Amino acid sequence: MKRIALIVAGGSGTRMGTEIPKQFLLVANKPILMHTIEAFYLSKVDTILVVLPSNQWEAWQQLCARHQFSIPHQIVPGGDARFSSVKNGLDLIDDNSLVAIHDGVRPFISAAIINQSFETALEKGNAIASVPLKDSIRKVELLSNKSVNRSSYYLIQTPQTFNSKQIKAAYEKAEHINFTDDAGVLEENGHAIHLMMGDYKNIKITTPEDLLIAEVFYQSIKANHLPPQ
Amino acid sequence: MKRIALIVAGGSGTRMGTEIPKQFLLVANKPILMHTIEAFYLSKVDTILVVLPSNQWEAWQQLCARHQFSIPHQIVPGGDARFSSVKNGLDLIDDNSLVAIHDGVRPFISAAIINQSFETALEKGNAIASVPLKDSIRKVELLSNKSVNRSSYYLIQTPQTFNSKQIKAAYEKAEHINFTDDAGVLEENGHAIHLMMGDYKNIKITTPEDLLIAEVFYQSIKANHLPPQ
Repeated sequence: MKRIALIVAGGSGTRMGTEIPKQFLLVANKPILMHTIEAFYLSKVDTILVVLPSNQWEAWQQLCARHQFSIPHQIVPGGDARFSSVKNGLDLIDDNSLVAIHDGVRPFISAAIINQSFETALEKGNAIASVPLKDSIRKVELLSNKSVNRSSYYLIQTPQTFNSKQIKAAYEKAEHINFTDDAGVLEENGHAIHLMMGDYKNIKITTPEDLLIAEVFYQSIKANHLPPQ
Repeated sequence: MKRIALIVAGGSGTRMGTEIPKQFLLVANKPILMHTIEAFYLSKVDTILVVLPSNQWEAWQQLCARHQFSIPHQIVPGGDARFSSVKNGLDLIDDNSLVAIHDGVRPFISAAIINQSFETALEKGNAIASVPLKDSIRKVELLSNKSVNRSSYYLIQTPQTFNSKQIKAAYEKAEHINFTDDAGVLEENGHAIHLMMGDYKNIKITTPEDLLIAEVFYQSIKANHLPPQ
């Protein structure tokens, strides 16, 4: 089946406290979104779709020119909310593909995890990158809170990779748009969800601290992947 | 009431993949544990107790000499597990104090949060630093997993500050030692737990990536606290 990356970059920069949309902020002198697209380009993917609000298209074109960014990708108009942005992308995909939906501001995803997610989704219908929770958590209720067993909880990342027919049908039938991720949309349509191991380094860059961390991770990853002398 | 810091530094370095216990690893050229002790020294605390495995005492003395570290603190022998380490510290504290139990490898705790935690514990009996969960989570069960409402979950940090009489009694009565934090011990003894806002920067340094992040946070915090020119 054809492998499609659907990279969702709808951010406006509000939480980051910047004028610049967070996907355009620089890590190692290059916009975060370019790092993310490169990660998929290095995997066995056939097509890269990038959802971007239409008022950012011109800035993106200028950035691509300035950074001589030439990886082929198709721009898709973003919607008002993440739900409609993803749906705009899914509308361009046929029923006989695998689609990896990925946050545009998770640039540190590895080709190995991307490829594994397509393979798992081919076999099981979907594959959701996730990592075990390392911290203690408590569940807050109306008037109290209680400890819960952290080993039962996984932090959900992207890519979330799906049989395109199943995820498209789920998005068509969804009765509200307040999902925190795409697995939730599929689950509501009655499908079992399959978790696979993600990576603690696969962070979502949403705050100024994250941007600092991203810079360090980039240097660390680069140091570990120097070409042989 | 007297304010006591009980800093727990029982780490062996296993997860960090180093020979050196993680609390002795350097951030900004200084052992992490010294940064943590300094944070409490800058708060309104009367006494600082530091729980440390006895086979690390000599190394710690040498580090203190090398770094000319002179903040007064009392060393307490660590136990086999975190539970017994904390209990060893609590045994030295009277029933009429407030005790802030804190991870030795959370060096970025602010004096403001420490002071707030003592004030809240004075009023309510306990104060547990925590932050809202930012990621989607799923709960894993025997054969399936399901989405849960992330806004109901808080990540638990330290300090966890208590009325000393209550937490000492809870540690005396606890029937097992497999708690992930001290709030869990108090809760099992029938007390309501009071959460207070922690800080996303108040990370627990447990992996090599955390150490890189710590270095960046330190530089960032330092840059924001330059003395006025």
